[in-house]
Amino acid sequence: MSSDDFIVTPWHVEGKIDYNKLIKKFGTEKISRQLLNTIEKIAGESHFMLRRGIFFSHRDLTRTLNDYKKGNKFFLYTGRGPSGHTHIGHLVPWVFAKWLQDKFKTNMYFQLTDDEKFFAKSKLTLEDANKFAYENALDFIALGFKPNNTKIIIDTKNIESLYPIAAKFAKKINFSNTKAVFGFTNQTNVGMIFYTSLQSAPCFLEDRPVLIPLGVDQDPHFRITRDIAPKLGLPKPALIHNIMIPSLLGTGGKMSASDDNSTIYTTDTPEVVKKKINKYAFSGGQPTIEEHRKKGGNPDVDISYQYLRIFFEPDDKKLKKLHDDYKSGKLLTGELKSILIEKINKFLKKHQQEREKARDKVDKYMFK
Amino acid sequence: MSSDDFIVTPWHVEGKIDYNKLIKKFGTEKISRQLLNTIEKIAGESHFMLRRGIFFSHRDLTRTLNDYKKGNKFFLYTGRGPSGHTHIGHLVPWVFAKWLQDKFKTNMYFQLTDDEKFFAKSKLTLEDANKFAYENALDFIALGFKPNNTKIIIDTKNIESLYPIAAKFAKKINFSNTKAVFGFTNQTNVGMIFYTSLQSAPCFLEDRPVLIPLGVDQDPHFRITRDIAPKLGLPKPALIHNIMIPSLLGTGGKMSASDDNSTIYTTDTPEVVKKKINKYAFSGGQPTIEEHRKKGGNPDVDISYQYLRIFFEPDDKKLKKLHDDYKSGKLLTGELKSILIEKINKFLKKHQQEREKARDKVDKYMFK
Repeated sequence: MSSDDFIVTPWHVEGKIDYNKLIKKFGTEKISRQLLNTIEKIAGESHFMLRRGIFFSHRDLTRTLNDYKKGNKFFLYTGRGPSGHTHIGHLVPWVFAKWLQDKFKTNMYFQLTDDEKFFAKSKLTLEDANKFAYENALDFIALGFKPNNTKIIIDTKNIESLYPIAAKFAKKINFSNTKAVFGFTNQTNVGMIFYTSLQSAPCFLEDRPVLIPLGVDQDPHFRITRDIAPKLGLPKPALIHNIMIPSLLGTGGKMSASDDNSTIYTTDTPEVVKKKINKYAFSGGQPTIEEHRKKGGNPDVDISYQYLRIFFEPDDKKLKKLHDDYKSGKLLTGELKSILIEKINKFLKKHQQEREKARDKVDKYMFK
Repeated sequence: MSSDDFIVTPWHVEGKIDYNKLIKKFGTEKISRQLLNTIEKIAGESHFMLRRGIFFSHRDLTRTLNDYKKGNKFFLYTGRGPSGHTHIGHLVPWVFAKWLQDKFKTNMYFQLTDDEKFFAKSKLTLEDANKFAYENALDFIALGFKPNNTKIIIDTKNIESLYPIAAKFAKKINFSNTKAVFGFTNQTNVGMIFYTSLQSAPCFLEDRPVLIPLGVDQDPHFRITRDIAPKLGLPKPALIHNIMIPSLLGTGGKMSASDDNSTIYTTDTPEVVKKKINKYAFSGGQPTIEEHRKKGGNPDVDISYQYLRIFFEPDDKKLKKLHDDYKSGKLLTGELKSILIEKINKFLKKHQQEREKARDKVDKYMFK
């Protein structure tokens, strides 16, 4: 891997990602100004994650919106690999999906891929992956999804509905395809090799096209789905991709649920959040206050600023002020961190309350 | 493939099989005289399929019987890939399994692998494979299995029970393993690659060891199961293997449900059976009656004699007389064919009646 190279696969993200290069590599389309206008026109408002390029790329979103305008609705599908507790990076596509659901009045399917994570993580048991699936479901429900138009799928639990669809895809995917798309080798386990067909399945739970908001690292799965769908007389799924949410430790790679110090979990206490941000959040500031006042900080690499941009400060004006003040040296890293800590803890206080309430109603959301 | 070579895999059997060579190649054990005595002692009687070497090989049957004598019971499991209607070759392990069930008073699981056949046959739809699964189930029930101790599994229907077990095996099988055991290539579809783990799953539906009566071509699946089971703290399945049932056209290969002329289906009418045997059953006789009377026939390659030996003439004395008379030239091929036709049609008359009755009770047998 040369210095400016990066790796993005569903199971491994490494290096500083050049998203323009990634769009070319994956063959997706950048979200254009025109497309943003179309969304805004239909939705009646914009979303900060779109304006800020957190969602930056798509496949067939133009077609999906054109069809929508003609009265042909889509449904939404996203998911999560339950290898541990939910962290704040996971919430990005879910919060955006909730906005899409509200604005476009669609059904939503949320897939928890306990089998996938069991196959991918050598030490994870299937029982633990399944337990995390239920824990993650609580975070999803806590965001305000309603059971009348939102269904949660857990792979091992809902396999009877998924498997017949997955089988039709599996028959049309050979080992070479999975080598080319995922970099699998002869040592890859057969669960992993088969798995991609199960991630295709929810795209076809309704007899209408699907739109999938998701991290761009998951795109390879749906590249396969899109290749095969027309051969089975099925519509190609449309996708809208978000960037990788950086770890506390810096803007290379993505936040990982398996490294405690690089991650803010939705279950973290205010004290833990404070400690993690103050101790680990990578700073774009200067070594000394004097120098910072003089040269200013770099918001592009400062994790506290990035988290505010990506999730915790929806107000563009307030964000711009933080950006400019940090860049000019007026705002110190410690001050920026305090602002973020307060925002996160305010968010998590409500989230954790909703999360506990979700325990009693989780069953209503389960796909049957 | 040199002239005395043969191929035996779960999806392809070709050439004249040397069963002693196959035992060495697969690493199984020949059923010894001593083992036959042990079975006879416990069962209170012998079975002609054992005496005649139709069941000829095993894995861990000695251990299974020793445990049984100490009061540790096993359960039975066999299956069928529903790619078409049942033919009489399929009935061989099922009839023997019924005998084992009666003598050893065990539970029995019968797996119909509609997914496997869909993956393996390019033109077969999943819907048709599933339809054949229900049709095949009728043949199984018609043999006299009882719903209180016999459950029928259909892969796509019972995947919720099978998948979590299969996943644990899938995680421990890599693509290299499937290449080595099944001869898979980069062009093999990922359904096929994953499938073997689903054939492992029913071995562990009860918390006791399993004994599997099955065609020896299915052994490779369980070689993998036996390798992995101890790593998961599970007992190795024991196996008892029957020879491949030859096609009407000769003793090379096996009877196939996909070639009408080489196959007697359980749904064939008496006229069709008569026509097929007379027209297609490979003869071990001489070109002319005169020559046959003088030189005699060869029962070892004569399909009519072989079907009587394998299935339709359980009486050893009667079979020996047919053998000797045919070999001496006293019995002509046409006469031998008439005897077989009568036996088959007598069997099928009752079988078809039971098969129709099974339609009303099939639901009682379904694994839930």
